[in-house]
Amino acid sequence: MNKTILLNNRPNGKPQESDFKFTNEDTPEVTSGEVLLKTRYVSVDPYMRGRMSDADSYVEPFQLQKPINSGIIAEVIESKNDSFSKGDFVSGMLDWKEYQTNNGNELLKVDADKAPLSAYLGILGMTGLTAYFGLTKIGNPQKGETIVVSGAAGAVGTIVGQIGKILSCRVVGIAGTDEKGEMLKSKFGFDAAINYNTTEDMTKAIADAAPNGVDVYYDNVGGTISDSVHANINRFGRIVVCGAISLYNSTSIPTGPRVEPFLIKKSVLMQGFIIGNYADKFPEGMDKLSQWLKAEKLNFSETIVEGFDNIPNAFLDLFEGKNKGKMIVKV
Amino acid sequence: MNKTILLNNRPNGKPQESDFKFTNEDTPEVTSGEVLLKTRYVSVDPYMRGRMSDADSYVEPFQLQKPINSGIIAEVIESKNDSFSKGDFVSGMLDWKEYQTNNGNELLKVDADKAPLSAYLGILGMTGLTAYFGLTKIGNPQKGETIVVSGAAGAVGTIVGQIGKILSCRVVGIAGTDEKGEMLKSKFGFDAAINYNTTEDMTKAIADAAPNGVDVYYDNVGGTISDSVHANINRFGRIVVCGAISLYNSTSIPTGPRVEPFLIKKSVLMQGFIIGNYADKFPEGMDKLSQWLKAEKLNFSETIVEGFDNIPNAFLDLFEGKNKGKMIVKV
Repeated sequence: MNKTILLNNRPNGKPQESDFKFTNEDTPEVTSGEVLLKTRYVSVDPYMRGRMSDADSYVEPFQLQKPINSGIIAEVIESKNDSFSKGDFVSGMLDWKEYQTNNGNELLKVDADKAPLSAYLGILGMTGLTAYFGLTKIGNPQKGETIVVSGAAGAVGTIVGQIGKILSCRVVGIAGTDEKGEMLKSKFGFDAAINYNTTEDMTKAIADAAPNGVDVYYDNVGGTISDSVHANINRFGRIVVCGAISLYNSTSIPTGPRVEPFLIKKSVLMQGFIIGNYADKFPEGMDKLSQWLKAEKLNFSETIVEGFDNIPNAFLDLFEGKNKGKMIVKV
Repeated sequence: MNKTILLNNRPNGKPQESDFKFTNEDTPEVTSGEVLLKTRYVSVDPYMRGRMSDADSYVEPFQLQKPINSGIIAEVIESKNDSFSKGDFVSGMLDWKEYQTNNGNELLKVDADKAPLSAYLGILGMTGLTAYFGLTKIGNPQKGETIVVSGAAGAVGTIVGQIGKILSCRVVGIAGTDEKGEMLKSKFGFDAAINYNTTEDMTKAIADAAPNGVDVYYDNVGGTISDSVHANINRFGRIVVCGAISLYNSTSIPTGPRVEPFLIKKSVLMQGFIIGNYADKFPEGMDKLSQWLKAEKLNFSETIVEGFDNIPNAFLDLFEGKNKGKMIVKV
């Protein structure tokens, strides 16, 4: 018995449980050069919504009736590959299966003694690197500048805000509950937090929280929240376009105020990116994040859901904002 | 008698003749350190629409019941300033007056023997510099890439396209008549031209004209024309946001498809700018443009309207696309 989760339908709008299908396969045989992996931690991430559609994108869409894949930490339980031993932990883009074989070519060994295993899906994985490169290479914040982060209580947002503080900036977070806002300030050192669900005039609230205007906007959400940040952007401002979770489930083309007038008026940069663009600089990013983590300058937050069967629901909960920090399923 | 043109009303939507008022002033007396200037050529430019409104902007709004100003080439007809002699020609931001005095601090002498005087308002002035810096510093086109220019038959657009050809790119221009399109190809060396007024499916037309996709989009217009270019942008594309003439007269906040999804999916950069940002590099730009002009690698196009009284109408005609190349009034 080897539980596997397939893509059953391409969602129209918000994904649902019925878009996923559970099947049972036989546990695979390990052939020469391969390892047998047992899934331990599964990352669920907003960008995966894009892969559920059949649209032209920067990553291949998931195939209908085939296993979904994502970032996974697995344990090597049998090895016929000289590079890996039984008991090793590895990280990689792997299928949503309890057990699978792999040739090891794209697996990375991770050290359970240096950090909790789940951290390699978050702060020491793609999430941390996304925060680090987007903020430093595109946002390029200077000492004393003001950074606003949307989706601030999410996996990337909490790290962006902390790096902003390490770089001596004022950091304002936008999140969806007062509890998240409190966490941003107490646990992650944000200077201010705004609850977009209870704030009537977001443009004014951002102006109040960023009295010198917004120099860097690290955007994880898009939509009307971003409109109110754009209204407060400073001359020569930089907008890091990392994600647009508020738009991903839209069934029509999302519309909003055109950006060209303020881009010209304020000489503003907007730059979209995916983390793969920085692949040749990953070692630099990992070094920085590990140093800061070791020096206790970085805190991290995880929402850990238990059980293989709960993977689809953990993914669906992302779109309800139910996670604080990185959403991970422990198998 | 010294005719002067004042801002009479702040326009609501499209500017009208009644937004301008003609008055007569006495010809001013020249005091020590000053020059008396006679206006010879007046530049009218789309960006001036912004200055007619009272909104927060990067340049001061025009004052109601005060003279409007713009780029002007004037002749020194009397001088009490050691730096200037009677008969010199100068360029500067000057008032819409037949005669005016000036302390000379921000005037630039121009050489009527090196280029026609009007060129100093166009290809050897702010227009040429706007094309040069926007394209090279933001668009950063590489040999063999495809550049699309909107407002291609306008003052900036014709120069952008030619610089693109000098840099060995494929250049596609978007303009509003077949006649303009022919001019882009025959006079300015564009590889292809698209008439947005007669093309039903702009997205497809751009795809056909740019079979390898769009690497650099030099945008002078904004709006739905830009939407169709965005739909064809390549991974790592660069959008130079220079102008948005299609949006300037809008009486409500212009809306359109949100850009974040394609910015992320294709890792695209959008950068707004004004030419003043590059002030410290103007000599570099002037050198390049003069060299290319001398080597006959750059052609330029002007629509010259005659008569001081026609300045407001020449400005209004910009919004009807009546100009080819730089719109200039000869006084």
